[in-house]
Amino acid sequence: MQNKIFDLIILGAGPAGITAAVYAARKKIDFLVISKDIGGQAAWSGDVENYTGYQFVTGPELVLKFQNHMDSFGIDLKMPEEIKAVTKNNNLITVATDKSEYITKAVVIATGKKPKPLGVPGEEEFRNKGVNFCATCDGPLFRSKNVAVIGGGNSALDAVLQMMKISPKVYVINSAPFLTGDSVMMSKAIAASNVEIWNNSKVKKIYGEKFVKGIEVTKDNKTYNFNVEGVFVEIGLLPNSDFVYAPVSSDSGVIQNSALIKLNELKEIVVDCYNRTNIDGIFACGDVTNVPEKQIIIACGEGAKASLAAFNYLSTHILP
Amino acid sequence: MQNKIFDLIILGAGPAGITAAVYAARKKIDFLVISKDIGGQAAWSGDVENYTGYQFVTGPELVLKFQNHMDSFGIDLKMPEEIKAVTKNNNLITVATDKSEYITKAVVIATGKKPKPLGVPGEEEFRNKGVNFCATCDGPLFRSKNVAVIGGGNSALDAVLQMMKISPKVYVINSAPFLTGDSVMMSKAIAASNVEIWNNSKVKKIYGEKFVKGIEVTKDNKTYNFNVEGVFVEIGLLPNSDFVYAPVSSDSGVIQNSALIKLNELKEIVVDCYNRTNIDGIFACGDVTNVPEKQIIIACGEGAKASLAAFNYLSTHILP
Repeated sequence: MQNKIFDLIILGAGPAGITAAVYAARKKIDFLVISKDIGGQAAWSGDVENYTGYQFVTGPELVLKFQNHMDSFGIDLKMPEEIKAVTKNNNLITVATDKSEYITKAVVIATGKKPKPLGVPGEEEFRNKGVNFCATCDGPLFRSKNVAVIGGGNSALDAVLQMMKISPKVYVINSAPFLTGDSVMMSKAIAASNVEIWNNSKVKKIYGEKFVKGIEVTKDNKTYNFNVEGVFVEIGLLPNSDFVYAPVSSDSGVIQNSALIKLNELKEIVVDCYNRTNIDGIFACGDVTNVPEKQIIIACGEGAKASLAAFNYLSTHILP
Repeated sequence: MQNKIFDLIILGAGPAGITAAVYAARKKIDFLVISKDIGGQAAWSGDVENYTGYQFVTGPELVLKFQNHMDSFGIDLKMPEEIKAVTKNNNLITVATDKSEYITKAVVIATGKKPKPLGVPGEEEFRNKGVNFCATCDGPLFRSKNVAVIGGGNSALDAVLQMMKISPKVYVINSAPFLTGDSVMMSKAIAASNVEIWNNSKVKKIYGEKFVKGIEVTKDNKTYNFNVEGVFVEIGLLPNSDFVYAPVSSDSGVIQNSALIKLNELKEIVVDCYNRTNIDGIFACGDVTNVPEKQIIIACGEGAKASLAAFNYLSTHILP
């Protein structure tokens, strides 16, 4: 427990959190960044072609540039620390981590998302060597190559609609008995001559040498092999928002609940167009929120908006 | 008048429009960018310190990187063309410019804003040589220098609150009899020992040699001179949204009104969190909209969101 009261604490140091930090630093307010890592999902992206201003850059390269940018402001970064709870009492917010507790007037939550993994052999081994979690980010790298999209909902269909334009063959491996996405998208996927849909089917293994060469799938107790160089795992993402509901033990020994920050049914933090949560002084941005798309440049823009919204809140409500 | 029907037309090639174009190019849809210039306001920004990933870059340098990024996709750019009207009939949208007419299924409007000028001698001459239109962008460059903020509303006060932390002296030159911004912000500005507020006062002239050295102000028929190196003109911005209400003559000779896209009282295009306007198929992003902050990184993020929203619209409503 530290006695100091910060103006702002930013949770997370992916694209959204780093941009929020750059903006806070330029406002000269007294703040802190707490994160378990640098770069978040961007750090394990493949080539990034759509961060405006960088034509070709890898995820890790871009993250290094972000980190250098943040470092140039001498920002106070507590890492690695895991957020355990965020609670608000009497206009002050307590951020509890696995290592300490911090008091602040405002918080920007930018803790991001993690993809839901398939949990099959080869998935970790070939991550970014054919196994991807974002068709918008990495799809164009698989032009003229056969790919498999794993999943049957809208994000899987979105991947299919993108890949069917550039891949000779797109296999859709869906564990459910039918697709569950938007009907127009489904019709288009079904109508495409180069899309083959496998319902009631489960991926058992991803294999290859240096890069992915194929997947093993079971359906009706039979085993099938598909020669693909790209595998898009699109079975969903999990927001890093568990701490929102975590119980927290205060210094007085009383167990409290975290601030009841509103989540949607996907456990994303609900923000308005000004990146405000339902709790005054608590802002959120990037992939942990209900922002419509999961893209680095969007997360950066949202991070800037959240940081400026927090500054405006401090200017108009709190700071002397 | 061209007979071809585009999937998407992007209006404007500032940060928002360029990012929208990069995303559209990656989706392989058939689209066009129409703009009167490249870079918009960013092109005449001074040093940019807050575009995540670039620690120090000038506005024109950053715009060149954006342009190269767009060019790498071979994007079809019509420039210079001035947008005259956007109309929608039978699910198709007509974009009329000063040179031609184009038909499209969807539109992303990213035409930006222009600052409202003071219209006094020296203002144009010393633009970016001491005369600035954005304290968040350029304020930190005037650390330890005396500055003047012109205006008396919230954007002027926002500039004052930022500058009073880093400038020895901040003169506020306000033509109205009192400040009109948020009361807490006003109290802080008034309480600050280094802020001097001049109401009922008008800037008559901005002067200097290579850079700004001072301003001439009149109040109650007296003339005053202030030695300042920075002048922040914060008397408002004008969205480039005139074409929304412009009358347009169709091929049949009938005069129609542009699509009645909803504007707010500032004449900004009103969008929801998904960058949708009130007209199906017409999206908007960046400074021409009601997005809360005017920043390059935010405009880029909004451009990506608008482009992806347009793609989703085409996928689910329109495209075969």
